[in-house]
Amino acid sequence: MSSSILLLLLLVSLMLPGHSLAKTRHFKWEVGYIHWSTDGEESVVMGINGAFPGPTIRGRAGDIIVVELTNKLHTEGVVIHWHGIRQFGTPWADGTAAISQCAINAGETFVYRFKVDKAGTYFYHGHYGMQRSAGLYGSLIVDVAQGENEPFHYDGEFNLLLSDWWHKGSHEQEVDLSSNPLRWIGEPQTLLINGRGQYNCSMAAQFSNPQLPQCKLRGGEQYAPQILRVRPNKTYRLRLASTTALASLNLAIGGHKMVVVEADGNYVQPFSVQDIDIYSGESYSILFTTNQDPSKNYWISTSVRGREPKTPQALTLLNYLPNSPSKFPTLPPPIAPLWNDYNHSKSFSNKILALMGSPKPPIKNHRRIILLNTQNKIDGYTKWAINNVSLVLPTTPYLGSIRYGINNAFDTRPPPDNFPIDYDVMKRAPNSNATYGNGVYMLKMNTTIDIILQNANALGEGASEIHPWHLHGHDFWVLGYGEGKFNEKHVKKFNLKNPPLRNTVVIYPYGWTALRFVTDNPGVWAFHCHIEPHLHMGMGVILAEGVHLVKNIPREALACGLTGKMLMTNKHN
Amino acid sequence: MSSSILLLLLLVSLMLPGHSLAKTRHFKWEVGYIHWSTDGEESVVMGINGAFPGPTIRGRAGDIIVVELTNKLHTEGVVIHWHGIRQFGTPWADGTAAISQCAINAGETFVYRFKVDKAGTYFYHGHYGMQRSAGLYGSLIVDVAQGENEPFHYDGEFNLLLSDWWHKGSHEQEVDLSSNPLRWIGEPQTLLINGRGQYNCSMAAQFSNPQLPQCKLRGGEQYAPQILRVRPNKTYRLRLASTTALASLNLAIGGHKMVVVEADGNYVQPFSVQDIDIYSGESYSILFTTNQDPSKNYWISTSVRGREPKTPQALTLLNYLPNSPSKFPTLPPPIAPLWNDYNHSKSFSNKILALMGSPKPPIKNHRRIILLNTQNKIDGYTKWAINNVSLVLPTTPYLGSIRYGINNAFDTRPPPDNFPIDYDVMKRAPNSNATYGNGVYMLKMNTTIDIILQNANALGEGASEIHPWHLHGHDFWVLGYGEGKFNEKHVKKFNLKNPPLRNTVVIYPYGWTALRFVTDNPGVWAFHCHIEPHLHMGMGVILAEGVHLVKNIPREALACGLTGKMLMTNKHN
Repeated sequence: MSSSILLLLLLVSLMLPGHSLAKTRHFKWEVGYIHWSTDGEESVVMGINGAFPGPTIRGRAGDIIVVELTNKLHTEGVVIHWHGIRQFGTPWADGTAAISQCAINAGETFVYRFKVDKAGTYFYHGHYGMQRSAGLYGSLIVDVAQGENEPFHYDGEFNLLLSDWWHKGSHEQEVDLSSNPLRWIGEPQTLLINGRGQYNCSMAAQFSNPQLPQCKLRGGEQYAPQILRVRPNKTYRLRLASTTALASLNLAIGGHKMVVVEADGNYVQPFSVQDIDIYSGESYSILFTTNQDPSKNYWISTSVRGREPKTPQALTLLNYLPNSPSKFPTLPPPIAPLWNDYNHSKSFSNKILALMGSPKPPIKNHRRIILLNTQNKIDGYTKWAINNVSLVLPTTPYLGSIRYGINNAFDTRPPPDNFPIDYDVMKRAPNSNATYGNGVYMLKMNTTIDIILQNANALGEGASEIHPWHLHGHDFWVLGYGEGKFNEKHVKKFNLKNPPLRNTVVIYPYGWTALRFVTDNPGVWAFHCHIEPHLHMGMGVILAEGVHLVKNIPREALACGLTGKMLMTNKHN
Repeated sequence: MSSSILLLLLLVSLMLPGHSLAKTRHFKWEVGYIHWSTDGEESVVMGINGAFPGPTIRGRAGDIIVVELTNKLHTEGVVIHWHGIRQFGTPWADGTAAISQCAINAGETFVYRFKVDKAGTYFYHGHYGMQRSAGLYGSLIVDVAQGENEPFHYDGEFNLLLSDWWHKGSHEQEVDLSSNPLRWIGEPQTLLINGRGQYNCSMAAQFSNPQLPQCKLRGGEQYAPQILRVRPNKTYRLRLASTTALASLNLAIGGHKMVVVEADGNYVQPFSVQDIDIYSGESYSILFTTNQDPSKNYWISTSVRGREPKTPQALTLLNYLPNSPSKFPTLPPPIAPLWNDYNHSKSFSNKILALMGSPKPPIKNHRRIILLNTQNKIDGYTKWAINNVSLVLPTTPYLGSIRYGINNAFDTRPPPDNFPIDYDVMKRAPNSNATYGNGVYMLKMNTTIDIILQNANALGEGASEIHPWHLHGHDFWVLGYGEGKFNEKHVKKFNLKNPPLRNTVVIYPYGWTALRFVTDNPGVWAFHCHIEPHLHMGMGVILAEGVHLVKNIPREALACGLTGKMLMTNKHN
């Protein structure tokens, strides 16, 4: 190519909107254990560069993010998943141990390099064992490309990463959850907002928690809340993401309405609510206007929903400037809807619709996979199973074993696309034939896949739980929710007009959720319940599409298990 | 080769004593975390095949031991070191992470295969991070080859593996020890005998520990002591090994004398004692005769020495049959010598001499390395340093990086053979120039090396601690112990006549210890303080000899770091 043509191409590329000014943003991270006081009780926490939560990544749509990750843990491997980033062309950078890559060994460095192609509110977290529960997470914010605008206006923004915290360490939790009989981890001790919570004291003791003393915080404590400082009569964007291990949350701002404008990095038709449900793995942006009495401050609260709460609500302060942040709100903190008021939750879910102009789903699907969610006993161990298969990840990452056609890396029998027609989702699982497995749903490239998540009764009588399912490598359209057992008649009621695009969606107790996506992204993608202990107990499936098209997997991503052996025997490279 | 010659060779080999009947002994192990009650308080413990301590390996001299080790930990790597086995010809099987091999990844299997060439009392343990402190250890007993005899007689034998236990998990200990300021782990909560101790109660409360209640044990508890059942007027061999993380121990049998006959897998001139000191990394065999009042039972006790004890003594029962094991001893448990009665300890050390006929050391050495042991601050962190270098292991195992001449895998500057002549070992380290490092003492093959371990004042005023140093890949002759600073005049007093062969030797406060060995075993060998937190804090050095002669390193031992990269780029294999 002559240099004049190169120059021309350069000039043209500079004129293309959104791509011309894309940057490569470099980050150098060390993951290691640190002493940290998340909630007033000090624990050993998995931090990045000596702090918890990890640093916020911020870029613009089209940017390349490069994270040079060094594992400073003493004996553990590590990976980081970039939750909500679809990894087009870089499936090896999805950060899922045993799926997209080998865990990074202690002492070693791995370079994640991927494009953030779509503006939105995202986050990242560990995806190996229960390292997310150990505190390995942080925010990832993508702004619109230079010269482009969000489809809504705001004067300022805040970002709240929500999580839950246990005083029992994540390793002990792993062992407890792998025991026979099961030792359940119980409810979290504390809810955290940006890694900060209060276990020993209550911010609003006088209103809501008379058994806890009023917090005496100077503000410099690691667990002191980050106060949201606002000016009156402005509109603010509040970014929310939940990386809880277990808790489903509800968030509200005392005295203020919220307008939902974004869900999981996709714009939605704006709608107004008093409070917002947010499940693990989800993210939202809401707008609020500081149109209340400016002489006062207000509480922002998050509370547990979907499970009987045993954890106090987490609070932070909306501080109208120039009021002092120590000026106590006169209104009590918002009270969340009853934990089991599922109608409230469903009503919220059903309000989420795609903004006009959003991509629409294909009208027809090529394949439908129905995934029955059950709790089962296998050899006496309590597990979660999907169509009677409880996922146990293999040692060799699927991306490598499928790409290179390695035998015996995983179960080659395809897992079932459905469950027996006579299965009663309203009753306990008969537990006749649940097994461990690690087979793969092999999906044809460029086809439309429907997945019906079918909830059922768990092991307890009359018990059916909420599960937020997260898909890697894709957004999907949420076509609808329903009660009881899914059947063919429900298909007619699918919303094909303006279904929202999401990467995480919930199934309600005894209900089903239908979603659709197109296999346009070569790779191997986990699809799983985002509740950390549920995934640990087998609640997930593996999808693969167009893996033969995947190029340039870094060798160091596959230097373990059978791909490691293969790469060292020189036959394939 | 014709079949008749093969037959002849077979016949000849069958006639060779000691080798003819050697066996290959296979073990299939899974390492994983388990709930276990080591001392009445349940913890999460690193077990093998679901139990703690790991299974005892028993073979005969000349046998091949094959351990197929599967890592069932959730996120951690693992290795196992076969303490006291010299690994002639199999340096890759020494089980030291970052030295002889890459840690075995979670989910993967590694096969250790090595010869146990010498009868004796050994043990095995984790050698990655502080996994020994997590409970990863067990016994390894090698009997004399078929048709051969021990040089002493006994009617029965027992095996006691001694350890210490903390209620704080090993991961938290690692983080504490790596903190600035240092958070010291303190003294153990409990001493264990064969993995069993009593924290909540005392076996002999009425005699020795009135603040603890008397144990009420049925005998089936995981923490109930293993009782030693003996017949009167017999001689028993008691095998002892200490895998403590920290504690120096003293063991005694109430009312019975002990005759020491073996130390670290080498026979010693039998000598009689009332009690025996045993440091972490050491093993002994003692003989005792059941010549006391046969109507009674007796206590066996171990107690902390060398540090001011804050841990109750551990007890088990010598049960003269046919007495009931619940018959309470009338004599109180033996009282250990005062913790800081170093003269008692030194007197014991000096009694240990090689049995006549044992291999003798060469008269002259080719090289002398003096290793100054100091505690230092580096960037505010408290560390142990050897000749001012605090060991930080590299990511790539030395055995691979040296064997294949890989650059930048570790510091190529040789670490110092000595320390400044004006250094005052009686005073605190001036801390002017301590650094982190991972350089290697490159030793010429088939030469005689003297190492002088020189103790000094630690960071505290008037503080100098005991350190048991353990050498991998070799036994060494202990030529002598001395007080203060070693100098040339001490050489004349070296015992070249009957110095004992050991793999572990202690340095006393403000003293020195001299040892000698011959570089006859190609490999890379750790030499380090066997106190787990001290090693974690950098107290060790790396020796290498004849690495170019090492053959047949399994590729999977090197599938990490720079050797992994090399093996995957096909240039060297």
